[in-house]
Amino acid sequence: MLKSHYSSQLLEKAVTEINRLPGIGSKTALRLALHLLRQDEGRVEALAESLVEMRQGVRYCQVCYNICDDERCEICSNPTRDSSLVCVVENVQDVMAIENTMQYRGLYHVLGGVISPMDGIGPGDLQIESLVERVRQGGVEEVILALSPTMEGDTTNYYIFRKLEDTGVKVTVIARGIAQNDELQYTDEVTLGRALAGRIPFGK
Amino acid sequence: MLKSHYSSQLLEKAVTEINRLPGIGSKTALRLALHLLRQDEGRVEALAESLVEMRQGVRYCQVCYNICDDERCEICSNPTRDSSLVCVVENVQDVMAIENTMQYRGLYHVLGGVISPMDGIGPGDLQIESLVERVRQGGVEEVILALSPTMEGDTTNYYIFRKLEDTGVKVTVIARGIAQNDELQYTDEVTLGRALAGRIPFGK
Repeated sequence: MLKSHYSSQLLEKAVTEINRLPGIGSKTALRLALHLLRQDEGRVEALAESLVEMRQGVRYCQVCYNICDDERCEICSNPTRDSSLVCVVENVQDVMAIENTMQYRGLYHVLGGVISPMDGIGPGDLQIESLVERVRQGGVEEVILALSPTMEGDTTNYYIFRKLEDTGVKVTVIARGIAQNDELQYTDEVTLGRALAGRIPFGK
Repeated sequence: MLKSHYSSQLLEKAVTEINRLPGIGSKTALRLALHLLRQDEGRVEALAESLVEMRQGVRYCQVCYNICDDERCEICSNPTRDSSLVCVVENVQDVMAIENTMQYRGLYHVLGGVISPMDGIGPGDLQIESLVERVRQGGVEEVILALSPTMEGDTTNYYIFRKLEDTGVKVTVIARGIAQNDELQYTDEVTLGRALAGRIPFGK
């Protein structure tokens, strides 16, 4: 697309800003800007305020590094959760995904990413040291590794496992196998191999 | 997707606001909000300000109803443009599309939509009366209808044509035919029929 001829500098500026968002191209940015132009001023202000307030107000839980509005997140400060279980995840979305299963009653530890030399992310950029410290302080009986089953996730799992080795804590990893409703014949060899190796007694 | 468990009310509010935008689902809204959380405060404020300033500041050109920052748009106030030619378009994007061709040196008239009884849009909701008035005031020699080739566009074209009939102005419509690089065998009958009917001397 050629450089567009905006008849309004204000429109052009808004489109440029929206266009900076990941996955929003210039045509979508223009469509969104023109949509906002048709809305009440109050609606646009509510959107703008919510973004600024979020950016200024959101904090990270001092225990698990999940996103929250206070010193501690709702999960860490909930006394009915099992504080002896800590599930290690990559990011906030993963916490939400696990919470949505409604199968987990322990706490979390949000790493903020996985070790990825290609992206220049080393162990020091992640909340690994704070996890080890948290386990050392006692009270944690099991650390569940729930990172994505990628090379980076596996590397990070192994790094954390080695780091926690001398604390004596039980370290487990979530099961890898065939996803619900997947067809066996189309499952890749690695997944199928792991599913076989990780078989459990039927009916359990 | 189940109702998500947001650990931050501020995050949830921002996601809700972003989610109101057309074509932005809840997962994309969360992705965008988390992206903004990782940006500098200044960047988020720049985005928020650009939206509010656009909504508060953008005006409609008093001549052609294009979006602009002043009383008159840049095109209408440009003395090198041919003011005897007025191209009727549906919206701002269409102005930009025609400007991008760099083939047109006349002015525009932005209707703000097309007649569409299904959507409850009648002639009174569009800038048709102002077009007729503009032509009556003199100086316009040709009105070019450049609406989309849909039933609604055709209806609007005909309505405008009838409205302008007694002004004596020349009314033309942009050519319908086969698009550049389209294959003849896959072109629909209506388009092909119109392309045949609208044939012009070769080499013109």
